[in-house]
Amino acid sequence: MRKLGTLRAAIFNAGNASRASALEISAQDFEQAWRTSTLGGFVFGKVVLEALLENDDHPESGRGSLLYTGATAALRGRPPFIAIAAAKAGLRSVSQSLAREFGPKGIHVAHIVIDGGIDGERLHANAAQRVARSGDPGLLHLEAIAETYWQLHIQHKSAWTQELDLRPFKEPF
Amino acid sequence: MRKLGTLRAAIFNAGNASRASALEISAQDFEQAWRTSTLGGFVFGKVVLEALLENDDHPESGRGSLLYTGATAALRGRPPFIAIAAAKAGLRSVSQSLAREFGPKGIHVAHIVIDGGIDGERLHANAAQRVARSGDPGLLHLEAIAETYWQLHIQHKSAWTQELDLRPFKEPF
Amino acid sequence: MRKLGTLRAAIFNAGNASRASALEISAQDFEQAWRTSTLGGFVFGKVVLEALLENDDHPESGRGSLLYTGATAALRGRPPFIAIAAAKAGLRSVSQSLAREFGPKGIHVAHIVIDGGIDGERLHANAAQRVARSGDPGLLHLEAIAETYWQLHIQHKSAWTQELDLRPFKEPF
Amino acid sequence: MRKLGTLRAAIFNAGNASRASALEISAQDFEQAWRTSTLGGFVFGKVVLEALLENDDHPESGRGSLLYTGATAALRGRPPFIAIAAAKAGLRSVSQSLAREFGPKGIHVAHIVIDGGIDGERLHANAAQRVARSGDPGLLHLEAIAETYWQLHIQHKSAWTQELDLRPFKEPF
Repeated sequence: MRKLGTLRAAIFNAGNASRASALEISAQDFEQAWRTSTLGGFVFGKVVLEALLENDDHPESGRGSLLYTGATAALRGRPPFIAIAAAKAGLRSVSQSLAREFGPKGIHVAHIVIDGGIDGERLHANAAQRVARSGDPGLLHLEAIAETYWQLHIQHKSAWTQELDLRPFKEPF
Repeated sequence: MRKLGTLRAAIFNAGNASRASALEISAQDFEQAWRTSTLGGFVFGKVVLEALLENDDHPESGRGSLLYTGATAALRGRPPFIAIAAAKAGLRSVSQSLAREFGPKGIHVAHIVIDGGIDGERLHANAAQRVARSGDPGLLHLEAIAETYWQLHIQHKSAWTQELDLRPFKEPF
Repeated sequence: MRKLGTLRAAIFNAGNASRASALEISAQDFEQAWRTSTLGGFVFGKVVLEALLENDDHPESGRGSLLYTGATAALRGRPPFIAIAAAKAGLRSVSQSLAREFGPKGIHVAHIVIDGGIDGERLHANAAQRVARSGDPGLLHLEAIAETYWQLHIQHKSAWTQELDLRPFKEPF
Repeated sequence: MRKLGTLRAAIFNAGNASRASALEISAQDFEQAWRTSTLGGFVFGKVVLEALLENDDHPESGRGSLLYTGATAALRGRPPFIAIAAAKAGLRSVSQSLAREFGPKGIHVAHIVIDGGIDGERLHANAAQRVARSGDPGLLHLEAIAETYWQLHIQHKSAWTQELDLRPFKEPF
């Protein structure tokens, strides 16, 4: 591809969550969730890593960051989310393998577990009742999420985070 | 399919473990590991569950068992096993979702984490040195594994196990 | 102490669960939970291990078993169970350290996570409503628990379990 | 106690790590590790929470932060660290219980898993060889740790982190 500049950080944020009994989810639906979240994250990671490996390995910031957006479902399989949970569990595993392989080469790979609704267009358009019920700040603010991603990106190479969770203060967990 | 008898227990045991850097594993290889371990386990589970749901729900033994063979890789992604780790993490998640959905319907879904080499044909044929180095009983005996699967199958419905690990006494972990 | 015979298996089963806000639990209450579950398990383990180390290391069964009864609280700290959760988390950690140190010496150390009410005297005497609501088998049967402990004790040394969970088929988790 | 000002954040950082076989660690040593890390963290938490609950619950920053320094040992019991591992596992559980109870009341409780040596006075004085072998930045810089604690403290209330890890880029895990 034509090079647009130097890559320093890349964020993987694909996802979708169908809800159904395992018996009602087809192999095609199950595969689609995997393609989006697991395979997508793997292929994305390979391309990003190849680009980042061309950067100099800065003594404080390394070569750059590869940040994966995860979900609580990655940690626990539960109905009716069998497809998204399996896909997100696979993505989390990918982030761990990449962190262990490429951390020593100066690339910061992290996995952010988003646990709660996001205060963005999708919920406001499709789930107005939930937005109202949650109140503010009962949903994750976009700027607050972005701030943590940014802080992960600029962490000093001597103290990198591989995984953290983000949830509204009153979200049950 | 033509019915051969009443299904009481089914064991999913597919797997394969290629080793390579994430950069050297193709999307096809990554997909193949997922097809074998995760999608295979999901599709297998659906077929088995539909058969088991036809059984009576016995007050002590339930309708039957669906047992998944997992691996330590399911718990931790690490190079050079990114493909098998992601696939086994997905399988573990599937087993949890199915256990939570179908346990209350009388079906025992369990995930067995095999942590160590298995004292079977494959290692004896392909890894004679490892077999010699492990000594006996440094590899998991087939009969010992089978015994635990059997015990899981006959557990009383009031005390079912969802996950356990199996490893040789001297295996580091 | 006067020796009564050869020790082969020992089960640690102490516990108690007070419920209160962290602000209402005194340091003394917190300490009491720890003394019962964590320190008790550690001291018990040391005495048992010293006795088991005197046994011959049988090639199939090893020297004997040390089995710890844990609880779901060991895996997740949550109010109002801060004291018991911290104590059970400590006990689980003890079981892991002992398994890693003494497994290679032929001693089987395992941790059993009991997740649900037990169909025994305590609940029948103190929580008749819960017993009625759970129905049968909605509580763990004593014989079923005992059977799994027995199976852990007689597992072959090539395939030992360090941790498993036990819960009634319909218990949410 | 005489009030010196308004408390906004408190960090618990006690710890010590004796190394020995479980058979050589006395109940007193085991208790000492617990007093330092678990009981200390519990009592500290109660005092801090009472002070923070007097603050107004700011819509963006809440009432304040209670940050616990943990260690990898909290996640896995292993010899020769049985005492510190059990103590740190208990502390982690305390942090979870407090987060679940007091997060909804506007107090941010987090647990930071430090995984690696710290580039501070203790290692420089007592482990010069390890310092030399690690190189720079092979040990966690004090300023880098402090920066992450600060970022946790100022996280927006809509997106709080309960747990994260910190390790040097090349630390195996």
